[in-house]
Amino acid sequence: MQTLDKTQTKFGQLTVRLSEIIDIESASSLLHWDQATYMPVRGASARSRQLATLKQISHEKFTDPKIGELLEDLRGYEQSLPYDSNTASLIRVARRDYDRAARVPAAFMAKLCRHQADSYEAWASAKATNNFAAVEPYLEKTLELSRQYANFFPEYEHIADPLIDRSDYGMKVSILRPLFAQLRQELVPIVEAIASQTPADDSCLHQNFAEAQQLEFTRTVVERMGYDFQRGRQDITLHPFMTNFSIDDVRITTRVYKDHLDQALFSSIHEAGHALYELGNSAEFEGTLLAGGISSGVHESQSRLWENLVGRSRGFWECFYPQLQGVFLRQLGHVTTDQFYKAINKVGRSLVRTDADEVTYNLHVAIRFDLELAMVEGKLSVHDLPEAWNDRYKTDLGIVPATDSEGAMQDVHWYVGTIGGMFQGYTLGNLMSAQFYETAVKINPEIPVEIERGNFTVLHDWLKQNIYQHGRKYTAVELVDRVTGSALSIEPFVRYIRHKYGEFYVV
Amino acid sequence: MQTLDKTQTKFGQLTVRLSEIIDIESASSLLHWDQATYMPVRGASARSRQLATLKQISHEKFTDPKIGELLEDLRGYEQSLPYDSNTASLIRVARRDYDRAARVPAAFMAKLCRHQADSYEAWASAKATNNFAAVEPYLEKTLELSRQYANFFPEYEHIADPLIDRSDYGMKVSILRPLFAQLRQELVPIVEAIASQTPADDSCLHQNFAEAQQLEFTRTVVERMGYDFQRGRQDITLHPFMTNFSIDDVRITTRVYKDHLDQALFSSIHEAGHALYELGNSAEFEGTLLAGGISSGVHESQSRLWENLVGRSRGFWECFYPQLQGVFLRQLGHVTTDQFYKAINKVGRSLVRTDADEVTYNLHVAIRFDLELAMVEGKLSVHDLPEAWNDRYKTDLGIVPATDSEGAMQDVHWYVGTIGGMFQGYTLGNLMSAQFYETAVKINPEIPVEIERGNFTVLHDWLKQNIYQHGRKYTAVELVDRVTGSALSIEPFVRYIRHKYGEFYVV
Repeated sequence: MQTLDKTQTKFGQLTVRLSEIIDIESASSLLHWDQATYMPVRGASARSRQLATLKQISHEKFTDPKIGELLEDLRGYEQSLPYDSNTASLIRVARRDYDRAARVPAAFMAKLCRHQADSYEAWASAKATNNFAAVEPYLEKTLELSRQYANFFPEYEHIADPLIDRSDYGMKVSILRPLFAQLRQELVPIVEAIASQTPADDSCLHQNFAEAQQLEFTRTVVERMGYDFQRGRQDITLHPFMTNFSIDDVRITTRVYKDHLDQALFSSIHEAGHALYELGNSAEFEGTLLAGGISSGVHESQSRLWENLVGRSRGFWECFYPQLQGVFLRQLGHVTTDQFYKAINKVGRSLVRTDADEVTYNLHVAIRFDLELAMVEGKLSVHDLPEAWNDRYKTDLGIVPATDSEGAMQDVHWYVGTIGGMFQGYTLGNLMSAQFYETAVKINPEIPVEIERGNFTVLHDWLKQNIYQHGRKYTAVELVDRVTGSALSIEPFVRYIRHKYGEFYVV
Repeated sequence: MQTLDKTQTKFGQLTVRLSEIIDIESASSLLHWDQATYMPVRGASARSRQLATLKQISHEKFTDPKIGELLEDLRGYEQSLPYDSNTASLIRVARRDYDRAARVPAAFMAKLCRHQADSYEAWASAKATNNFAAVEPYLEKTLELSRQYANFFPEYEHIADPLIDRSDYGMKVSILRPLFAQLRQELVPIVEAIASQTPADDSCLHQNFAEAQQLEFTRTVVERMGYDFQRGRQDITLHPFMTNFSIDDVRITTRVYKDHLDQALFSSIHEAGHALYELGNSAEFEGTLLAGGISSGVHESQSRLWENLVGRSRGFWECFYPQLQGVFLRQLGHVTTDQFYKAINKVGRSLVRTDADEVTYNLHVAIRFDLELAMVEGKLSVHDLPEAWNDRYKTDLGIVPATDSEGAMQDVHWYVGTIGGMFQGYTLGNLMSAQFYETAVKINPEIPVEIERGNFTVLHDWLKQNIYQHGRKYTAVELVDRVTGSALSIEPFVRYIRHKYGEFYVV
């Protein structure tokens, strides 16, 4: 009895410490949100300093050896509880996060952060002037630091694994490489087939659409999906993102272009998908490490599920297109639902990942994934990156960028992060989105019909029940298995693509 | 040489520690700003927890005995430097803040904070139902805690002095009581005289003014005053305030009412006055304890100087009124500058301090000041407060509130703060605003003419040079003396009121 009391005291001490750290992280998130939405331009330099200070405090507090001791003392307690009890799960997730953080010296993290800030600046100006040579030394240092980071985890199977693990815990090169290779094998011929046929006409999306009305429309759409404006809000930014400051304050951002109707629309649905995940966490997880999403991949599966499998489906627009026409009668009055549906699903070979359609998107990701692996493995030098990039674009997508700014410098990722571990989440997300959705519809065959009626309750409830509520309790691998009854696979995604695009094209 | 090196190392350690604390405080300020502007309703409960966490961390870090040691070690160094050097001033201000914070046990501060949160809730519901009895026990506890707080500084001359010192360092009952008494003696007869004459007609302010256009107009006004939107922004809130997250990010908020043109207008000018002060701090003070404003009183002197001495002057509207007419032609086209000028300067006996004109305003403050002193002195019980309140309103303003909600419960101050030290800053601000402005015009007699031309440069530069740039370097008493060559006095304010209102009324 006394031991249990003592154990519970220790568990209490752990949660108090963790809650303090989570509060600091939430404050950081708000500073970031403000920086990306409302901060006056001149506020930037103090803001960077403030963010660095908060990061350092939370890192110091989290790697305090006292947390390690408490976790050690709680090991027996954890093992005495069912694996999926909240208490055991919290201790398990805390240990995982702590072990990762404590292995990397604070001085190294500070060095990495400083380098990333410098590297970002170098990239922004090199991209503007198409000068890859100017970022080479930065990228070389990033590569060196990425390898150093990995070596704090010398038990790795592949040197990129510890880098992948940062955002997609449990995923490894030995799982991902074959998966991505199979996917590429399936997709390259489909893309080739589509590219040889008449492209869809998406000119209806590129007219003059008043920004305020676009915003108002996206607001009603995400509200219908179940996004609750009492627990969130939507603001304008440059690069849309979702962020949260608690389970009851999960915000989305979007960008609105007068002549690109799809931007505000699909970025809003995408970010609302991320937000529904976090809003759907079990309320008991508030202020604990169990709140949030498991991994980049699982998070992206929710945004892509809503954006693509739901938001780019015919049924979705059976419901919403007449309303959208009502808002933009002059521009869309003469465009049929079918024409609009084809326009938002136009497939084409393009150079920029973020503008890519859902068929070609994963080819972009696979290219980066393979190139970053080759670099950390030492098989590709930074100097040879642009050439390797262009070769792969030629092979996989049949086009070659005219400049490195549209090529190896197009994404910010390697210039603000590590080399290795930066891209797999996007494709994992696409694969899982199809696998989850296929299961949801198998169990609730009424979902597509309900969507046509603008009713998302069955789908939303199923996702909440099976995915959202669990927060970070299960790993991605466990979750896929629990929810779908099978291991992660490319099959559902390929089936989805073949089925959907088989309607327009010979694939 | 070696000693100096060692000293400079210690000074460096001190500034690093203080800068970390300032960054945490800036984060807190952003959390507050967000809470008052954009936070979704359901975000409130986590936000309170996050604010409490940050407050605790900054308090712990600031009262770390290591800071006390560094300050002790730096005493000789400080004394070797000129009083007004930045280094000596920083050490002096840090010592003052540290001594105050370190005297009060963290546990007491936590208790006070919790009580203030509870007391706020009790007040909000008691005010809504006009039930003073419901807040009595809270107010009694506040009184007890206020007295306990004061007793952590047993060397006080008057028990309210340590409470006053929190926001108006160096001010004391022995200075304030006679000042407020003299002021009351001057003002009561003026108010009586005005009340017996025909009141001004302010109906022109209460028409239907589109909110967006009001906001746009206030924006151009504050920009002309010198408020820089690259270093700040204006948002909508319930109770307008100014806040800053660095010297280059100083934000204002306002509220806009369709049928109260003066609300957005004067609250914007008021908050912009506060903002100009902080934006005008010496750039070297960024991230140090010397940034900001000295005291409530001096801060308020800047907001009131711009709001009243400038913003409610005839010259100001000679310039801006035609523009305002242009914006609201239908509503104001037939209203003359003179009519508008009289409307915005209408004097009347009213119950609510925050709605009071500049003549009666200080009588409201004096009532609260005297009542809070009587309470901390033990001469007035909480139970008898409503009666004492009503008696004083009868004597000083000639009216009595029908309910305690409009009486002793009208202000939030005693219900979220201490009893003692909560109100003096408002009147100090009014007095100093007149004393500063009189000096500015004596030295630069062209100021009023420049204002008529919408040119605020001479005034703004003078304020920057004499007040803003110094941040927290000098105390309020030192500053008034340096700037005006005399001690704080009621004379300039009384002269200003007599002169201005002597134009409309026999005063």
